[in-house]
Amino acid sequence: MAEAAITPAVNNLTLSDKIPQHEFSQRVLIRTILTRPDGGAGLANQTLKVGGWVKKGREQGKGTFAFIELNDGSCPANLQLIIHSDVGPLGQFTPTGTCLHVEGVLQMPPEDKQGKQAIEMKVVKVLDVGSVDPAKYPLPKTRLTLEFLRDYVHLRPRTNTIAAIARIRNALAYATHTFFQKHGFLYVHTPIITTSDCEGAGEMFQVTTLINEAEKIEKELIKNPPPTQEDVDSAKSDVKAKGEIVAKLKADKAGKPEVTAAVVELTKAKENCSKIEERFKLKPGIPKKDGKIDYGQDFFARQAFLTVSGQLQVETFACALSSVYTFGPTFRAEHSHTSRHLAEFWMVEPEIAFADIEDDMKCAEAYVRFLCQWLLDNCLDDMEFMVEKFDKNAIKRLQMVASTNFVRLSYTEAVTILEEAVSKGHKFENKVEWGIDLASEHEKFLTEVKFESPVIVYNYPKGIKAFYMKVNPDKKTVAAMDVLVPKVGELIGGSQREENYEVIKERILEMGLPLEPYEWYLDLRRYGTVKHSGFGLGFERMILFATGIDNIRDVIPFPRYPGRADL
Amino acid sequence: MAEAAITPAVNNLTLSDKIPQHEFSQRVLIRTILTRPDGGAGLANQTLKVGGWVKKGREQGKGTFAFIELNDGSCPANLQLIIHSDVGPLGQFTPTGTCLHVEGVLQMPPEDKQGKQAIEMKVVKVLDVGSVDPAKYPLPKTRLTLEFLRDYVHLRPRTNTIAAIARIRNALAYATHTFFQKHGFLYVHTPIITTSDCEGAGEMFQVTTLINEAEKIEKELIKNPPPTQEDVDSAKSDVKAKGEIVAKLKADKAGKPEVTAAVVELTKAKENCSKIEERFKLKPGIPKKDGKIDYGQDFFARQAFLTVSGQLQVETFACALSSVYTFGPTFRAEHSHTSRHLAEFWMVEPEIAFADIEDDMKCAEAYVRFLCQWLLDNCLDDMEFMVEKFDKNAIKRLQMVASTNFVRLSYTEAVTILEEAVSKGHKFENKVEWGIDLASEHEKFLTEVKFESPVIVYNYPKGIKAFYMKVNPDKKTVAAMDVLVPKVGELIGGSQREENYEVIKERILEMGLPLEPYEWYLDLRRYGTVKHSGFGLGFERMILFATGIDNIRDVIPFPRYPGRADL
Repeated sequence: MAEAAITPAVNNLTLSDKIPQHEFSQRVLIRTILTRPDGGAGLANQTLKVGGWVKKGREQGKGTFAFIELNDGSCPANLQLIIHSDVGPLGQFTPTGTCLHVEGVLQMPPEDKQGKQAIEMKVVKVLDVGSVDPAKYPLPKTRLTLEFLRDYVHLRPRTNTIAAIARIRNALAYATHTFFQKHGFLYVHTPIITTSDCEGAGEMFQVTTLINEAEKIEKELIKNPPPTQEDVDSAKSDVKAKGEIVAKLKADKAGKPEVTAAVVELTKAKENCSKIEERFKLKPGIPKKDGKIDYGQDFFARQAFLTVSGQLQVETFACALSSVYTFGPTFRAEHSHTSRHLAEFWMVEPEIAFADIEDDMKCAEAYVRFLCQWLLDNCLDDMEFMVEKFDKNAIKRLQMVASTNFVRLSYTEAVTILEEAVSKGHKFENKVEWGIDLASEHEKFLTEVKFESPVIVYNYPKGIKAFYMKVNPDKKTVAAMDVLVPKVGELIGGSQREENYEVIKERILEMGLPLEPYEWYLDLRRYGTVKHSGFGLGFERMILFATGIDNIRDVIPFPRYPGRADL
Repeated sequence: MAEAAITPAVNNLTLSDKIPQHEFSQRVLIRTILTRPDGGAGLANQTLKVGGWVKKGREQGKGTFAFIELNDGSCPANLQLIIHSDVGPLGQFTPTGTCLHVEGVLQMPPEDKQGKQAIEMKVVKVLDVGSVDPAKYPLPKTRLTLEFLRDYVHLRPRTNTIAAIARIRNALAYATHTFFQKHGFLYVHTPIITTSDCEGAGEMFQVTTLINEAEKIEKELIKNPPPTQEDVDSAKSDVKAKGEIVAKLKADKAGKPEVTAAVVELTKAKENCSKIEERFKLKPGIPKKDGKIDYGQDFFARQAFLTVSGQLQVETFACALSSVYTFGPTFRAEHSHTSRHLAEFWMVEPEIAFADIEDDMKCAEAYVRFLCQWLLDNCLDDMEFMVEKFDKNAIKRLQMVASTNFVRLSYTEAVTILEEAVSKGHKFENKVEWGIDLASEHEKFLTEVKFESPVIVYNYPKGIKAFYMKVNPDKKTVAAMDVLVPKVGELIGGSQREENYEVIKERILEMGLPLEPYEWYLDLRRYGTVKHSGFGLGFERMILFATGIDNIRDVIPFPRYPGRADL
């Protein structure tokens, strides 16, 4: 199918004179001009429309014209506009942040400026202006630290850095789908609201309507005070009295219209009474039963949470459709204030049937290398910006990972290497011995110092890993693997899953977990069980790795962490 | 880039003899055999491994061999296996649901059976069996209604129908990304946890850690009963006493060691006292302040919810990067038990700068037609299954939409048409007059009866639409549009957004909404405002439209609705 044969971030450009109009807006994307191999020179003399925001503007020639750097977010480069004062009031066009929609003619810049840009636009007509009062604009030209920008998540996409990160994030997301689709994986939307706790860790956000409902009832009870016991009693005796009237009329063989009228009265009294009894039961506050919150009255008739991982659920599809993946938001209610933790973050989790830990490592390596190559092929201009502003090694790191076979070593070998380093005088804060969970400093030593390459560590001690990981024949280790990369340490964690019903049941009990919530998971092992493996990649960690940015709050559009959930 | 030039659901097949091994598992995907133009015939005599689950198995020739239909989820078709009894115990291989991983030789079937399949596999070795006790398997061969299957969300992907829907859903998701990437849109992850209420509708799920925290405190207070007022008083007098001792020793000019010892005692008493006072303050229940819940103590230091739409947030990126889209889960806490509502569903929401309502309609139409064509090109086998089992018009509907220009008419024209129908005797349950919100029956009349084609209705009365929609020059209508299609009615809702600061501010106030929560949204109009438009497509509605399935609970992997959130 021809439709699929596209490259996402940069169009297939030729040196033709045709410039593609954006099909659904009244302009040409600036990247379709500037990212041509000729820098746009071949488009000279064409008249077209562009739109974007002013990065820099300055009046020249005693106010007879202005130079404006315009950016529309389609690429990091700006298009230079020249506007003469007869086109409109220049002072309105030049402030940083102004939105301009203009029509103009592309032209080669004067010879002495051709080094800087291959093409510029002489504006013929200003179609629309979204002006800015520079005295009030919240993004001053200086002091725009990433930390400062976190207070302006709604405006920060207008900065070069956040825009570049957004394009890199977009490219990595599409590369992820492309990689897995190419290899025959089906994308499965695992649930966000869940009644399972994957890790048994418990740091979950609760999803509820109980508080809202309770507040509604409280308001209602203040507006219409609840009936008292006396009201109830009085309504009841009214029913009784009306009933006696009916009975008496019937006993007296009264006329039909008379009896009917009395029955109508009785029915009214009964309805009124049941309404009063219903409202009498209304209690302010969250509903309780036997001293505990009555989740039977919550929206899902049980306690519900935000997912911490889609893995367990996506396994149900792997055990039917064989190669699947999920890519969605996950949540942790940890009170972590570090530069590496978010309360809401995105995870990519493939799951493969008929695959063991070797296949799993192969897939993880191929995926990470594909992502790196994709950025080199599709986002080189943004990566060059990151190199210039944040991390001079960012491109080199991508090239290295894309072209290097990952080192593989068992956990036991890794610990031996770390112990040797200690014996040679290397200092770690955390003690090294067989059985520990590798700390970040250990991971960085392996990938940055010892091997200077990505490293996959596999076969971890059973005691430090989750119940669902396959127990190895040695009974001491499980078929788990972590992919470690320079700059961020652990990028991927995965494992072969325990597919043996008896073994996994025992592991659940061993960990002190209840069986009941896992019955559905056990069913996958009871009926047509299959050898399968999978892993999880923290999407924001991948962006940190690629860009060299230090704080995870800057690589997600709307960061959520303790005390903050802007917008 | 060659990597991108792939078709997602069906490989680029040639009639070569090479059969691609799945790179990350120990088998060949069955679709790479059966979906070749030659049906796999060109692969005869090749030895390879496959894995999957038994759809049907039967012993033949007095138990000397068995025929097994094996499916691995990669396509709707099954591969026929022939296993002889010398390979293993046939009774273990034949029950429906059994997982088999086998090695075998592909061969042409006997001539009299070549109509049914082009190729079959003679199994040489069974590598792995995940057996099934047919007496206990929860999915009986009969009575598998979609409703019955909703009680087995963890096993239902093993059925033909749910598997076909999963593949169609996957194809539509990848088609969505491909369409927007192709047109230069950037994918933006809008937040799931939000402190904004887009629609002001209020039917939102609350996200909180307050209940958990309160329960932790309650447990703690039961384990260690809180101190009484007496305990506090006694701790205070202890401090006082120890303080007096120190004072006395100093006054008496006692020796340094003696004073130091007394000071140590005093410090201990002070620490003990402040601990007791701290615990004395612990109250069971959710923290309150001035009679209201103290959200200052919640995880985000304010009340937080699950998003109902990413639109407002994605606008912040449209007003910086110009063409963007979001594709993610959204939530409504409505107590709807209909076949059209879910509490958790997925939405696709593009947002385009420098675009008006015309551009918006053009984009919506191009997107929907692209999706339909994609399914015809990539999922025809699954669509044929849907036609056979659920909706004989499903493929015709896709073809019609892919090849038809959508009818466009203003809301006023639509109402005139409906009024004419009424005057000719057509009965609607809901009254037709200018100003009403079109009901589902009206939408279906327009698209299914009047035009028999997709219809876009635009320029709706201001009073029935959201505050952010652009007010038209007539001051009575807004530049909103809905795309209506046969079978499901409204598939897309969109609008040009009001970009004028004064107008939108007035609209917010007019609707009785507070300004403060929208200050960030107003900032987009205060600083460098831009004409922009966007829309939302309910992803599950698109799947209902494509497949002809009736209940929305069957087209999402893990449906959430009142009383149910399995797994």
